[in-house]
Amino acid sequence: IDTIHHTSKWGAKFKWGAKDTNTGMCRLSLSQDEKMVRDWLVQETQKLGCKVKIDEIGNIFAIYSGLKEGAPTAIGSHLDTQPTGGRYDGILGVLSGLEILRTFKDNNYTPQYPVAVVNWTNEEGARFPKSIMASSVWAGVSDINDIYAIESITDEKPITVLEALTSIGYKGDTKACHKTNPLKAHFELHIEQGPILEKEQKDIGVVTGVQAYSWIGINLRGRAQHTGTTPMDMRADTYLTAAKIAIVVNNITKKHRGLGSVAEIHVSPNVVNVIPDSTEFVLDIRHTTDAGLQNIEADIESEVSKIIKGTDVIMEFKKLFHNDATHFNNECIDIVQECATNIVGSNKTKKMISGAGHDSCSTTNAKVPTSMIFIPSKGGISHNPVEYSSPEEIEKGFKVLLDTVVTFDSK
Amino acid sequence: IDTIHHTSKWGAKFKWGAKDTNTGMCRLSLSQDEKMVRDWLVQETQKLGCKVKIDEIGNIFAIYSGLKEGAPTAIGSHLDTQPTGGRYDGILGVLSGLEILRTFKDNNYTPQYPVAVVNWTNEEGARFPKSIMASSVWAGVSDINDIYAIESITDEKPITVLEALTSIGYKGDTKACHKTNPLKAHFELHIEQGPILEKEQKDIGVVTGVQAYSWIGINLRGRAQHTGTTPMDMRADTYLTAAKIAIVVNNITKKHRGLGSVAEIHVSPNVVNVIPDSTEFVLDIRHTTDAGLQNIEADIESEVSKIIKGTDVIMEFKKLFHNDATHFNNECIDIVQECATNIVGSNKTKKMISGAGHDSCSTTNAKVPTSMIFIPSKGGISHNPVEYSSPEEIEKGFKVLLDTVVTFDSK
Ligand SMILES: NC(=O)NCCC(=O)O
Ligand SMILES: NC(=O)NCCC(=O)O
Repeated sequence: IDTIHHTSKWGAKFKWGAKDTNTGMCRLSLSQDEKMVRDWLVQETQKLGCKVKIDEIGNIFAIYSGLKEGAPTAIGSHLDTQPTGGRYDGILGVLSGLEILRTFKDNNYTPQYPVAVVNWTNEEGARFPKSIMASSVWAGVSDINDIYAIESITDEKPITVLEALTSIGYKGDTKACHKTNPLKAHFELHIEQGPILEKEQKDIGVVTGVQAYSWIGINLRGRAQHTGTTPMDMRADTYLTAAKIAIVVNNITKKHRGLGSVAEIHVSPNVVNVIPDSTEFVLDIRHTTDAGLQNIEADIESEVSKIIKGTDVIMEFKKLFHNDATHFNNECIDIVQECATNIVGSNKTKKMISGAGHDSCSTTNAKVPTSMIFIPSKGGISHNPVEYSSPEEIEKGFKVLLDTVVTFDSK
Repeated sequence: IDTIHHTSKWGAKFKWGAKDTNTGMCRLSLSQDEKMVRDWLVQETQKLGCKVKIDEIGNIFAIYSGLKEGAPTAIGSHLDTQPTGGRYDGILGVLSGLEILRTFKDNNYTPQYPVAVVNWTNEEGARFPKSIMASSVWAGVSDINDIYAIESITDEKPITVLEALTSIGYKGDTKACHKTNPLKAHFELHIEQGPILEKEQKDIGVVTGVQAYSWIGINLRGRAQHTGTTPMDMRADTYLTAAKIAIVVNNITKKHRGLGSVAEIHVSPNVVNVIPDSTEFVLDIRHTTDAGLQNIEADIESEVSKIIKGTDVIMEFKKLFHNDATHFNNECIDIVQECATNIVGSNKTKKMISGAGHDSCSTTNAKVPTSMIFIPSKGGISHNPVEYSSPEEIEKGFKVLLDTVVTFDSK
């Protein structure tokens, strides 16, 4: 916990309470602040005797030796945050990995096989608009040259991923490849980012997988006209159309017991008395099953066509991102369940599906045995400066992670 | 028409066609480009022998002498444009006034009483968010110190109206006051900015007044939460609420045969997977009658309360701007009708109400006999770079304006 607060100095922002630690974070991927925390992580793990590899896409693998050689058991997550993020999302997972290595060292404990802390580059997709970015390159799901070319959306003068990696010195030599730089397993401790554990008063979420989700861009083109002089029936009002779409998306996803949101929207010219000729927005839709997600998508396409039909608004539909439902490894899930039961009691654990995507989706895609451990998020709030999990909640999560890694390594 | 295109060099932007003149305009109020066209107007009118007064709020009065002394008959409008504006809105009115004075001079014609060209500062309210700004100070409707303090919304570093006036040298000595610097009448030639004249194939709109309108700011506060992890029934989604409001506003205004639009909207944090905790937008609602506008406002307030009720979204309602329905002077309207009938034939004229507000509302508020002349706008498009009226349409409008001014002055 001290380490979390200590390293938050690189990116701390948005003070919300009296204590020094009562701030959120803005530590965008491959920024100067993120370089500082990366440099620090490399030094801390080297002090523990780790061998540190940096791959071509900036992923950091700090490897603590075991009694035997072999692919390391990884504890991974990410150190980047949202522009208005908190202190725990991602950060908890990486720093808990570091704390496990420190615990090994302090106790003169040598694992059977190597154990690695992994920091995956740009999980958030906030600065470079592609979430779970670098772990998906490592997993072979994304092409490295496509990813290198992505431009930042938070800089006044956009720069590419490749330029950003080079400028902070984190384009490493190791190939970003799960075959040539393999992992034996991947465990990720993360805050739930939702309200369920808190509501049900559980300490540990035993995460069995991640729901399916899609991001769909909708671009509408109409006519810029004067709001005061254009009769209601002679308009091509893209914002009104967008509002109608937001409501059908809400209704359809509720009907299918999925999730559907419009949260990013750009209206142009965005002037009080000019009907917007352009409205662009992104649908975020999710369902626990692939079939459920497909049904939602199909219903949305048909309902949206009905809204557009007979108007002068033109629509473009762009699939920006898709992740099938992810199913974690049964053996890994069982170990987490067993360790959690020992530490907090089985009535304080809950088997659950993650609502959000994580780097553990990439390691699963790379066929690496993977699972995740969740701890409660206060008020279910995340991607927000007030994101909070208590020291007691964090300690329980850490203990389950430690036991899980030791148990898996000892089998 | 040559003068329109010549002076468009100060602010020309957004090329949309092959010809040099096929561009829109971005000539924000009190900008360097607007200073250039102001300087030019002062010089041109002085060349014609005009006495030029600049008032404390930058309004320019270029006065051509008559046979007798007295308050001038004014031909006024504005030289500022929207950020994505066209070549005609406002500009046509001021430059037609100049052209009338040139016509007097070329023909050695001296009016009975003085005739003035007036350029009103910041009609658009685009840079400094208050439309019909300086004419309303002159009319005694707005307080000059309140107006001086308004900050620009289009500059990276906002500056106040007073700073902008001073920086371009247009804070004049004349008091901005319709009592101490009076006008005998105010005539304004303007593009319709709507589709009616074109649709009905009329050449001249004889404008009898301006409809009532209000701008209402609605600020919504909810919770920033993760789109992937927050159940649909545990959200306080300000954007979804805003979408519902946009739709009820549309339905209510259609029911009352008014106009209602949401065209300016700010969503925060505006990230694909973070439910917006803040959505702020402005309603633009209009009706030909004051009672109609009141009914729309009342219905909106009650329907919006229903939408908010039972949710965790908090709403703030702010009345930003209100203009009662404006009724122009009957004598002025009759002269326009008579002159238009002589020039284009009565079947090519249409008595109509302006959908948009104009500086002529301010002169009416100051009890100055006022009316307006409209010419068709291609496709009803305005506040848009492709805004267009043909040379033939402009010429007809100019002739009606010229005859109107001469007729009024001779009575
Ligand atoms: N954990 C997390 O916020 N991942 C980003 C991708 C998503 O929105 O699920
Ligand atoms: N003419 C014009 O666009 N005036 C601005 C105020 C309004 O929106 O009516």
